[in-house]
Amino acid sequence: MTWSEVGNTACPIARALAVVGDRWTVLILRELFLGTRRFDAFQAQTGMSSHLLSTRLKRLEEDGVIARCAYSERPLRHEYQLTEKGLDLYPLLLSLKAWGERWESTSTTEEPALTIVHRNCNHRIGLDVICTSCGERVEAKTARFSLGAKFAAERRARGGQ
Amino acid sequence: MTWSEVGNTACPIARALAVVGDRWTVLILRELFLGTRRFDAFQAQTGMSSHLLSTRLKRLEEDGVIARCAYSERPLRHEYQLTEKGLDLYPLLLSLKAWGERWESTSTTEEPALTIVHRNCNHRIGLDVICTSCGERVEAKTARFSLGAKFAAERRARGGQ
Repeated sequence: MTWSEVGNTACPIARALAVVGDRWTVLILRELFLGTRRFDAFQAQTGMSSHLLSTRLKRLEEDGVIARCAYSERPLRHEYQLTEKGLDLYPLLLSLKAWGERWESTSTTEEPALTIVHRNCNHRIGLDVICTSCGERVEAKTARFSLGAKFAAERRARGGQ
Repeated sequence: MTWSEVGNTACPIARALAVVGDRWTVLILRELFLGTRRFDAFQAQTGMSSHLLSTRLKRLEEDGVIARCAYSERPLRHEYQLTEKGLDLYPLLLSLKAWGERWESTSTTEEPALTIVHRNCNHRIGLDVICTSCGERVEAKTARFSLGAKFAAERRARGGQ
């Protein structure tokens, strides 16, 4: 099965992965959140080849995650920025940051490489998953996954359980 | 630059992506959170080839994200489950689900394919990023990214800004 077939599913996780399920793409998103706007800077910070980078940027633009605008006419040069759809990927970056810090850290005493500060109160932001109904902090063990009818039918058709 | 070089960085996002920055890997994680335990079932639900699936499972085990135990001796068969490190990836799945539902949905009226329910209060869980200092809901525009000295030096060395 190719990924384009997997993306054609009722599952929102798989559909999201069809857009942002590539590590180079997420690295570009990190750069955009850090304020990087130009091709050369993306390339320097990610180490991507010119071909790989332009393919990923084009795809992100087609998917409506980034927008491109010209900052120079001669020669023609573009800047890239996150759209509203792109900005909404912010919890994804925060979840990777929190997990990377906790589980893939080389040192526990080192200062954080990246801090995200809440502009309104000037404190560091931590990621907590809060139940929007009761306000409690949710952990994996207090969460139960349940399937909608369409996705359940899709899964039954695949079988293997 | 290969990914293993990118992973060797002060940035926790890049280090997390070295482990979970692959869409097939995240699809396996989704299955684990849904309760899938056996090779055949992973294969049926993800459509991955046997080779691709065993490579990814082996890597996840080496990275300490999943654990394997034998449920049959003859023939030797294994089950897989999330470790504590794996369970801690739950916010990543939730962020992809929320974004996929909002931006990559085929229909707005359809019932959700996947619902995550808080066991303690039996309500659906929403993902809000809450500032752990002031308790306010954080949005991308109220968050400021700042760099630690080591990562800032690494970025200056790469140049291109």
